[in-house]
Amino acid sequence: MLCRAARQAQVALPVRNVASIATAEPSGPSLKTKVPGPASMEIKKKMDPLHQTTSVRVFVDFEKSFGNYMVDADGNTLLDVYTQISSLPLGYNHPDLVKAATSPHFITSLVSRPALGSFPRNDFPDGISRALTSIAPKGLKAVQTMLCGTSANENAMKTAFIWYMTNRRGGNPPDQKALETAFVQKQPGTPRLSVLGFQGAFHGRSLTALSVTRSKAIHKVDIPAFDWPIAKFPRYKYPLVDNKAYNDAQDKESLKDVQEKIAEWKKKDHDVAAIIVEPIQSEGGDHYGSPAFFKQLQKIAADNGIVFIVDEVQTGGGGTGDMWAHSHWNLDSPPDIVVFSKKLITGGYFYKEHLRVKEGYRIYNTWMGDPSKLFLLEKVVEVIKRDDLINKTKLVGEYFQSQLQELQSNHSSKISQARGLGTYAAMDFPDSSTRDRFVDKAINLGLHCGGCGEKSLRFRPSLVYDKPHVDITFDILDKALRQL
Amino acid sequence: MLCRAARQAQVALPVRNVASIATAEPSGPSLKTKVPGPASMEIKKKMDPLHQTTSVRVFVDFEKSFGNYMVDADGNTLLDVYTQISSLPLGYNHPDLVKAATSPHFITSLVSRPALGSFPRNDFPDGISRALTSIAPKGLKAVQTMLCGTSANENAMKTAFIWYMTNRRGGNPPDQKALETAFVQKQPGTPRLSVLGFQGAFHGRSLTALSVTRSKAIHKVDIPAFDWPIAKFPRYKYPLVDNKAYNDAQDKESLKDVQEKIAEWKKKDHDVAAIIVEPIQSEGGDHYGSPAFFKQLQKIAADNGIVFIVDEVQTGGGGTGDMWAHSHWNLDSPPDIVVFSKKLITGGYFYKEHLRVKEGYRIYNTWMGDPSKLFLLEKVVEVIKRDDLINKTKLVGEYFQSQLQELQSNHSSKISQARGLGTYAAMDFPDSSTRDRFVDKAINLGLHCGGCGEKSLRFRPSLVYDKPHVDITFDILDKALRQL
Repeated sequence: MLCRAARQAQVALPVRNVASIATAEPSGPSLKTKVPGPASMEIKKKMDPLHQTTSVRVFVDFEKSFGNYMVDADGNTLLDVYTQISSLPLGYNHPDLVKAATSPHFITSLVSRPALGSFPRNDFPDGISRALTSIAPKGLKAVQTMLCGTSANENAMKTAFIWYMTNRRGGNPPDQKALETAFVQKQPGTPRLSVLGFQGAFHGRSLTALSVTRSKAIHKVDIPAFDWPIAKFPRYKYPLVDNKAYNDAQDKESLKDVQEKIAEWKKKDHDVAAIIVEPIQSEGGDHYGSPAFFKQLQKIAADNGIVFIVDEVQTGGGGTGDMWAHSHWNLDSPPDIVVFSKKLITGGYFYKEHLRVKEGYRIYNTWMGDPSKLFLLEKVVEVIKRDDLINKTKLVGEYFQSQLQELQSNHSSKISQARGLGTYAAMDFPDSSTRDRFVDKAINLGLHCGGCGEKSLRFRPSLVYDKPHVDITFDILDKALRQL
Repeated sequence: MLCRAARQAQVALPVRNVASIATAEPSGPSLKTKVPGPASMEIKKKMDPLHQTTSVRVFVDFEKSFGNYMVDADGNTLLDVYTQISSLPLGYNHPDLVKAATSPHFITSLVSRPALGSFPRNDFPDGISRALTSIAPKGLKAVQTMLCGTSANENAMKTAFIWYMTNRRGGNPPDQKALETAFVQKQPGTPRLSVLGFQGAFHGRSLTALSVTRSKAIHKVDIPAFDWPIAKFPRYKYPLVDNKAYNDAQDKESLKDVQEKIAEWKKKDHDVAAIIVEPIQSEGGDHYGSPAFFKQLQKIAADNGIVFIVDEVQTGGGGTGDMWAHSHWNLDSPPDIVVFSKKLITGGYFYKEHLRVKEGYRIYNTWMGDPSKLFLLEKVVEVIKRDDLINKTKLVGEYFQSQLQELQSNHSSKISQARGLGTYAAMDFPDSSTRDRFVDKAINLGLHCGGCGEKSLRFRPSLVYDKPHVDITFDILDKALRQL
């Protein structure tokens, strides 16, 4: 038997050229070419015959990128306040994650992927406990991992349907009649149920998710959809303090529409089994609802025996200054289901105990998530806690929002509706083409940012985005606005 | 500037306890406890409050598992002919994959995950070329990566819908009317189109995938579905040579049903835009269609301007003795779309050039796949080619099928309908409960296998499954049948 050190030396794997992975942030952005530059265009040309490139903006050198800085194929270094698509919690190549990625449980989970629903890893419950239970929204405990936000939303809705029909059967599992009719897609086994979504919402791009998504027509066109109700979502004027009456009326109008739609679909024998809503309608244009609005919405759901699903795919993970955006609402009781993905790396959803599906293989698929993502999240959560990143984001967020107000004051003819929570923020341009021209200018001044909705710009920085990054951000925003 | 060696030493990452990952296959199965044993039951108890465990069969020690052998939490070593859920191409912890998993492009792709649709890695096109273009079905080139089989099927169907509606517009992109009506989910923007599936089919568990899935009622019950046509799929008697007339009649009946369903849905103004079909209905019970059947089916699709989607999620990757099961049909022209996942690690689909979606953000989502899976597949493909694993599987498969026939001869009162292609194989038991008792016996003799359909057992070994493994397999099957 070899001693431990010798044994390790013997089997040490060649971690080849790890020196090539960046280990420090540059002091600021630097541009070598126009973005996208010739190298990006060259790679795009190579890729096009093999795989669609219609939405590719720039190719990224992921080994050179670090922290808040993305380095593109042409060597341009951009401060990234968009973090891919709001999906990198700790920015690029965080050293703790790079280190963790070479440990055996990462390697085995990567090369020998388990079918988690049937043959999970020994250490899967510990991973869940450390990565997810430890950050569970207040009042929620049980969680279901999935692969991405869309599959999490699909399964959250399935959970709601199953609960709704179980209730109709007086709490009983599916009987013979339900099973037989489900097999040939007839009622009662295949029920006429619906999910209520909102105008401007985005919940994914599967046919079902698109049925409750109404952010951009190009996502939906030519795709069949379920005939499900879509209600009005509030559209506020900012600053909030100056527009209280208007905004309260928005809440009221939206809630009235929700109630009418529920009644209308009930009348059509097409009951609403679930309401799905984002804390911030992100893809749709960074539209917020007030805590009072969400409290009322939750009450309407409860009063009607409807499952209240909060889709935190984009907002979960700390960017709003809390691990969960819905925490800002101070609900008396948690949402029935809270869906997550993106910055939380693994997809999934937390759910209230009464929604637990008791029969096997109903909420199920081949992989049911991915432990290599779960273990990564475990390390992310460890770093967030160790480095107190949520509180830091709150402070940085306050600074960010004050800078945003100042920017708006200085450029009030060009931007409006400055709004935000934590470091999540947005502002509006007069129209779509002005916004697009602005994004292009900002990127070419070294700030990687992204639009949303018709004419908004959204900010989705990482949790390691700090005050010096805020200063660089607003310096560039100011320059770009002057050039506009 | 440090020399390269010194620089590497300086930054060498601690690959901790890699000695803990197994590096060799045991000589055979060995049992320490009943399966599942006390350790598995203990972990299950711990997991249950945090995450559903209704379908968990056993917990697996993924560091001790190697090659064709799965080691469970109790230290039981099982020969695995089910490979999770037909999803491990090279078995457990293949040394080439373990080694590859510590290289920088793996690490960076894991810890800094790109949004591939917009900001792909520099090396993404090279990865696609090496991992996917190199194994593309004959006649197909363009590929779209996705996260899993279900999302690949969803996007394959979306691609079909988009093509179908583009044709209706005379080849034009969506016009203003289409966009406006899609936004409020009315025709023509939100079309009444359908996808034709088959009885016994399985294409995933999203609401849309379930609408063309008809393998087990418990998967579908309580979940709303699209009213889409489901046609009869052939049900053959084996051996094929002795049942030609019966089986030909099955083909004919099924094809007639397909044509009738297409006409019926057209009449209802609910056109069939795509036909989706598996080469082997796997989850549904390992039902095969003949090459003649599929040729005719392809012709019916072409004659009616319908997209022909072959779902190779379970069959792609070499197990049938060819990289693609549909290659065995000798089609004159490839299927319009071929979907893959599972053994090919990344989800996705190949498609014919005329189906290419020209507008951005229509076939799109946050991640659009996962380069850490693509790079793993790249290494898998390299190993498959280097070690000639497809041809080996063909030879091992011939041996397997002859052994299966012999087993059936020796136990003809207990098993029937022995069938297969390559090392993919199945046999039937008199009923569901006998099958379930058999599976339990086989597992407790050291063979990890899994059922499918009502009363079938399916074999889905890895590509490193060799003749000695076949002998152990049939030794256990024989013993288990004697005990039955």
